[in-house]
Amino acid sequence: MEKVLVIGHRNPDTDSICSALAYAHLKKELGVNAEAVRLGEVNKETAYALDYFNLETPRFIEKVDEDVKEVILVDHNEFQQSVSNISDVRIAEVIDHHRVANFETKDPLYFRVEPVGCTATILNKMYKEHQVEIPKHIAGLMVSAIISDSLLFKSPTCTDEDIKAAKELAKIAEVDLDVYGLEMLKAGTDLKDKSMDE
Amino acid sequence: MEKVLVIGHRNPDTDSICSALAYAHLKKELGVNAEAVRLGEVNKETAYALDYFNLETPRFIEKVDEDVKEVILVDHNEFQQSVSNISDVRIAEVIDHHRVANFETKDPLYFRVEPVGCTATILNKMYKEHQVEIPKHIAGLMVSAIISDSLLFKSPTCTDEDIKAAKELAKIAEVDLDVYGLEMLKAGTDLKDKSMDE
Ligand SMILES: [Mn+2]
Ligand SMILES: [Mn+2]
Ligand SMILES: [Mn+2]
Ligand SMILES: [Mn+2]
Repeated sequence: MEKVLVIGHRNPDTDSICSALAYAHLKKELGVNAEAVRLGEVNKETAYALDYFNLETPRFIEKVDEDVKEVILVDHNEFQQSVSNISDVRIAEVIDHHRVANFETKDPLYFRVEPVGCTATILNKMYKEHQVEIPKHIAGLMVSAIISDSLLFKSPTCTDEDIKAAKELAKIAEVDLDVYGLEMLKAGTDLKDKSMDE
Repeated sequence: MEKVLVIGHRNPDTDSICSALAYAHLKKELGVNAEAVRLGEVNKETAYALDYFNLETPRFIEKVDEDVKEVILVDHNEFQQSVSNISDVRIAEVIDHHRVANFETKDPLYFRVEPVGCTATILNKMYKEHQVEIPKHIAGLMVSAIISDSLLFKSPTCTDEDIKAAKELAKIAEVDLDVYGLEMLKAGTDLKDKSMDE
């Protein structure tokens, strides 16, 4: 079966990595040969989440391999934030929560942008729409993405939908939102290292 | 309450007029002060559908009125197919089934494009998602849009989803798809006038 790459943005944050993995999982459950990839180094916060839920870092790509015919963009839509040869591949889908700009396709596609605080919040709805159960470790990634994008619900971009989704996902992932959330955010800010240096 | 205009494309076809009316109705049911408008003359096919289901032609606008803060685009997303001052207004939503191009916003929005044959097919899903019942005359407009865009299911852009939606909507609208569909398409092609001339 033809491979479909699920791609987050350059300088990936936790949402770009975790939503790529979470959406690739959903597509695989739906019978698509999907693989999550990344366009840059995984930051410490994301590494903490991947390690906590025992998941491997997605494969790094510089450009889309020649044998890949279709890609799915998550957490971005602007071409300059995407893979270098994005103009040469067919974009089958976009799942995002940012403004739309510098995007263009020749063909119709599935393009879903919602004004919420995190891509994973949209994916949580999509799992329900397709009636696919979210496994514990995938729920863990998704709640990590929401915690990261919303700074544990303190960001002005955070919506009620994000909070509701995070609570549902935390339950499946069996984590306490405040305890896990603060640990993850701390891992990203290197506060631990600093206090040990001092 | 602030008014939101629901706008189809220039040189409106049946989908642009009927989906604007159908989506404005859904938004009103959801508590939004929405009004469907049109950017050009209604063609004979569309006029047949509006007349059949006893609905008024939407108001014509040349540009978005100054007191309108937000618009919703249906059946198009490219700015050059839209209202002349589209760059000056906030686009709250896009519901469409075409390729994405020449579109840009400053802010996040609800942008929903699906690779189906007609905007009304997406609206049929949205009524269900919001659990709003589709009234008979609105279902009539929506099935008219699908018949028009799919040329009664003969167009290569027609998908299984469009056929399924059309069947559901025809039932609510209490029309026979083949009988009503052929009459509507004929009204658009002026075949009747011609055969009377001959
Ligand atoms: Mn991001
Ligand atoms: Mn994000
Ligand atoms: Mn159209
Ligand atoms: Mn259309």
